[in-house]
Amino acid sequence: MSKIACVITDYFEDSEYRDPAQGFKEAGHTVVAIEKEKGKTVKGKQGEVEVTIDESIDQVNPGDFDALFIPGGFSPDQLRADDRFVQFAKSFMDDKKPVFAICHGPQLLITAKTLDGRSATGFTSIRVDMENAGVNFKDEEVVVCGSQLVTSRNPDDIPAFTRESLNLLK
Amino acid sequence: MSKIACVITDYFEDSEYRDPAQGFKEAGHTVVAIEKEKGKTVKGKQGEVEVTIDESIDQVNPGDFDALFIPGGFSPDQLRADDRFVQFAKSFMDDKKPVFAICHGPQLLITAKTLDGRSATGFTSIRVDMENAGVNFKDEEVVVCGSQLVTSRNPDDIPAFTRESLNLLK
Repeated sequence: MSKIACVITDYFEDSEYRDPAQGFKEAGHTVVAIEKEKGKTVKGKQGEVEVTIDESIDQVNPGDFDALFIPGGFSPDQLRADDRFVQFAKSFMDDKKPVFAICHGPQLLITAKTLDGRSATGFTSIRVDMENAGVNFKDEEVVVCGSQLVTSRNPDDIPAFTRESLNLLK
Repeated sequence: MSKIACVITDYFEDSEYRDPAQGFKEAGHTVVAIEKEKGKTVKGKQGEVEVTIDESIDQVNPGDFDALFIPGGFSPDQLRADDRFVQFAKSFMDDKKPVFAICHGPQLLITAKTLDGRSATGFTSIRVDMENAGVNFKDEEVVVCGSQLVTSRNPDDIPAFTRESLNLLK
């Protein structure tokens, strides 16, 4: 089974972490929550979900993981202000490992300059940013590009997002 | 004196509204807070500042204002998901009226596709988005472009941001 890195911090979109993570775990995969500080609790912006950070970004190596999961909300924009998260995400894209990004998740991939020429989707507010980054933006519930990159728009798309992400881990 | 439109919603960066707005008012200008719903109270993400909305976006006309002010935080990203705010901001840029955007404020101007070829700055997390939008990005406390557009990076830059914004209202 796969070991999935999840980069996450405060103000994430609650269901966009909770539901895919539950789906991944029920399928037998491991989800490792990564932020600046191991042991810290980060909170969703709806106040419904809390996540205890398993590993500090300083202590992890992309090579130890099979896939990357980026939940949305205001979390990805904060993570991309810290170059350690940008370089971590870039490694998965460069190595063509599965990357699952929902809602604002693609913001981290824009800053990592990894989306030029890719087909993808994202939350409506970041559409122009994605297009300016060279994305072929599709207004669809889930977009799978190159058997590697899975993106979705918002919480309504979570079932399709989780399904297609799991397909890449088979 | 000038009538300044301020587009703002929840999770704005508290000081980035409070301090420039205070500076504008002390200089004799009027600041009109605009969101979806007139009379609503929007709250800063630090929980320090609340703003009562003066006018609904449906009830205002860009022609009634002399300048536009866009505080940062997570407010601009939410506003740009609603095309009424995007078109409102675009009008000020098209009409070459003064526009003051700090921190994440330029996100609204990116979605309005008004920044290509402009010199500007913004919060570090949106730097790549701004560059992809055609901005000549400068890592400076305040950038004034074309005697029209004033941008700054973060709360530390507020004094310079307010000073240069006021200069364009003289």
